[in-house]
Amino acid sequence: MTSPLRLLIHGASGRMGQALLRLAAERDDLSVAAAVARKSPAQRVVEGVPQFAASELNGVPEFDVAIDFSLPEGFDPVLALCVQRGCALVSGTTGLSSAQNQAIDAASAGIAVVWAANYSLGVAVLTELVRRAAAALPAWDCDLIEAHHTRKLDAPSGTALHLGQAVAIGRGSEPHYASLRAGDIVGEHLVQFASAGERLELIHRATNRDIFARGALEAALKLARQAPGRYRLAELMFPNL
Amino acid sequence: MTSPLRLLIHGASGRMGQALLRLAAERDDLSVAAAVARKSPAQRVVEGVPQFAASELNGVPEFDVAIDFSLPEGFDPVLALCVQRGCALVSGTTGLSSAQNQAIDAASAGIAVVWAANYSLGVAVLTELVRRAAAALPAWDCDLIEAHHTRKLDAPSGTALHLGQAVAIGRGSEPHYASLRAGDIVGEHLVQFASAGERLELIHRATNRDIFARGALEAALKLARQAPGRYRLAELMFPNL
Amino acid sequence: MTSPLRLLIHGASGRMGQALLRLAAERDDLSVAAAVARKSPAQRVVEGVPQFAASELNGVPEFDVAIDFSLPEGFDPVLALCVQRGCALVSGTTGLSSAQNQAIDAASAGIAVVWAANYSLGVAVLTELVRRAAAALPAWDCDLIEAHHTRKLDAPSGTALHLGQAVAIGRGSEPHYASLRAGDIVGEHLVQFASAGERLELIHRATNRDIFARGALEAALKLARQAPGRYRLAELMFPNL
Amino acid sequence: MTSPLRLLIHGASGRMGQALLRLAAERDDLSVAAAVARKSPAQRVVEGVPQFAASELNGVPEFDVAIDFSLPEGFDPVLALCVQRGCALVSGTTGLSSAQNQAIDAASAGIAVVWAANYSLGVAVLTELVRRAAAALPAWDCDLIEAHHTRKLDAPSGTALHLGQAVAIGRGSEPHYASLRAGDIVGEHLVQFASAGERLELIHRATNRDIFARGALEAALKLARQAPGRYRLAELMFPNL
Repeated sequence: MTSPLRLLIHGASGRMGQALLRLAAERDDLSVAAAVARKSPAQRVVEGVPQFAASELNGVPEFDVAIDFSLPEGFDPVLALCVQRGCALVSGTTGLSSAQNQAIDAASAGIAVVWAANYSLGVAVLTELVRRAAAALPAWDCDLIEAHHTRKLDAPSGTALHLGQAVAIGRGSEPHYASLRAGDIVGEHLVQFASAGERLELIHRATNRDIFARGALEAALKLARQAPGRYRLAELMFPNL
Repeated sequence: MTSPLRLLIHGASGRMGQALLRLAAERDDLSVAAAVARKSPAQRVVEGVPQFAASELNGVPEFDVAIDFSLPEGFDPVLALCVQRGCALVSGTTGLSSAQNQAIDAASAGIAVVWAANYSLGVAVLTELVRRAAAALPAWDCDLIEAHHTRKLDAPSGTALHLGQAVAIGRGSEPHYASLRAGDIVGEHLVQFASAGERLELIHRATNRDIFARGALEAALKLARQAPGRYRLAELMFPNL
Repeated sequence: MTSPLRLLIHGASGRMGQALLRLAAERDDLSVAAAVARKSPAQRVVEGVPQFAASELNGVPEFDVAIDFSLPEGFDPVLALCVQRGCALVSGTTGLSSAQNQAIDAASAGIAVVWAANYSLGVAVLTELVRRAAAALPAWDCDLIEAHHTRKLDAPSGTALHLGQAVAIGRGSEPHYASLRAGDIVGEHLVQFASAGERLELIHRATNRDIFARGALEAALKLARQAPGRYRLAELMFPNL
Repeated sequence: MTSPLRLLIHGASGRMGQALLRLAAERDDLSVAAAVARKSPAQRVVEGVPQFAASELNGVPEFDVAIDFSLPEGFDPVLALCVQRGCALVSGTTGLSSAQNQAIDAASAGIAVVWAANYSLGVAVLTELVRRAAAALPAWDCDLIEAHHTRKLDAPSGTALHLGQAVAIGRGSEPHYASLRAGDIVGEHLVQFASAGERLELIHRATNRDIFARGALEAALKLARQAPGRYRLAELMFPNL
């Protein structure tokens, strides 16, 4: 049996970081080499996981893949660390600048990197299906409805815009967007293609936020076996899709 | 066996008028005493139905119920004729002024009248269910999505606004509206009530425009047996709903 | 301000009992006078809640309403206790015999009782809407689809059968049932009424099991103010629905 | 401008045949060289279309592509005619024997042939998407719900079984099937993939039977430009899907 993949969890005190720690602890094929949080106190071990403050980042022990769900200001150091140590990076940090985005491209000459706004594997599959359907049916009307909980302020959601870009790649124009904010809906995205007498509806429904952390863990396992380069989540996880 | 109900079809050359004539001809419990169209030539009989121009309205033979899907400028004469002859009136003419609306109220002292923007019986039931759900769940978030064909210019649809009023009667505030225009969708309306951990979706899907004419014919049969008064479609058709 | 309602939680070690204790602790209008579990050790207080074994049931302190999610063999004692002390009873224990069901009727001469298989308020509203729609549209085809997680063994679900009875009350015949077992779906029920050219879909989606405990707590608050009698959940919670 | 494609409509008196004649007449890029029906009287021209009885099949004028929606007993002659004349064949005749199916394979050495049970382009796209999703998500639960009008006797529908095969190709096992028969639903197919916390729903809704004839006409236009061979509808219409 192979030894477990060693993870660096960067952004460990956030909602995603906490979910990553909880779900990684349930698995035999993963171990957490270090959990780094902005405000962590000095080094200590909590429930078997060595904890580090962001300022101590360069002192973390050996790891295979970093998973980063932090903030734009925390991104550059973890990218630099991965490059320096030759480790792969899975990042879901949003709000990166275009300079940071270019830094990912540059780093991908030496390490394997995946960045995605949404690590749901179902959304990754949906995105590919939407791109293909849009390319096959360029003359059909295309609409996108997304629904999220009432605390979500941005609309359309980042995932909706990402799906809309998949539509645009396929057919040259974006869909019409509609956004609902209701209850505690985790996230739903419906892409509809309509013509005379028929239509297609492609829908993803998320009911538990753990899917995002679970997808990031799966991505780390896959990315660890890849050559250097920048990967889209769908092509990494579903190369034959 | 009772003799068939005698109808006056007012607005006979429009899409609804044509559907009413076609569907009435298939039934034993209905007969068409006269079809009145704005531009009809002088009196003649086409496929067994006596045809009249709008200018000849007062010369039509005896009838029991008038069904009117015309234009605001054609409405006053048919209302006056019904009052004069003591006949019931089923009207779906849209764009009436508030004066015309008040004229309906005044006329209803002497004759039975139903006016509705949408004669789908499914929409009538949905409207009642929406009103009740909104009253039962006043704190739940409420959203309304409607979808229609791409030639429909107004948004939200009149039916959506009518459903929104049912929500407002029930809970004091209107829903959020979203409108889709796609393909040749006849009409779909979804009202969603969402709370933490659960939600209700109440949906009507129309796939054939005949439902509107069929509903108006059913309304005429029911209205013929009612005392004078102004009726909402739902209370006329489903008094126990 | 009124003092909080005092609850007896009967069946405290089960999934529902645990959720009831957790959610009650978050509210100011409720307090837990006692938590009774089959296998509880001798009397003690855990996190502010006095714990009792089933064998000690008759020694619990004063309470206003008992909430019972236990097993058929535990039901008779808690019903007897409520009758003896004149306290209301909210029960969701399934698998009761017809003798136990008759015992509820008898007890309801002296105390207020509600029994329901599903305490989701959304399902309660749906059930009423379904009954009304079925009565309004007796000639429309009626189908019921339910979806639950793969560990659920019975099909159709108890809630589906309950909705089907609401259909049967409304129109004289039950719907056709279809059952899906997939993923970790908490519970979805769709009742469809279809006619030529149109249809109605009435859907409930549960995404979090807390709705059942929350509904039972709300029912306890309402039941505490009712006269003796046996209440259906919908009429208790939504008397004007 | 190129001259219109010349069609042989075989099975012209059936519902599909009539729709093909009506829709072909509306287009400039298509002409009907001959309409063949089992019971047609001797040769004559109706509304510009030369009519032939099945017994006169070999005497029809030149055409480019035959479109066949007939019966198994009418299939062999039209296939033989296409082979003899070197014309392409679009067939939607159902109930063919395995010998007839092998005859298609043999014929495809010399002519281009497409056979499909369902010529909806939306269903063709859905089938490809379903195959891909099933291959990407082999461990997710898969369910298929189909709904059709109450006169449809077979269940699951042929299209549902075809989609189920696409699932099986992708993941090795067929989905669970559920069938609804309600109202006058033209045809709806939903394929659901469910995992913990998320799911995908891929849906096709047909609201007008003309989509099948329209798809067959589009297939004829595409097939006319193909090399000999047997094509699946999806690969013919959407080679890059």
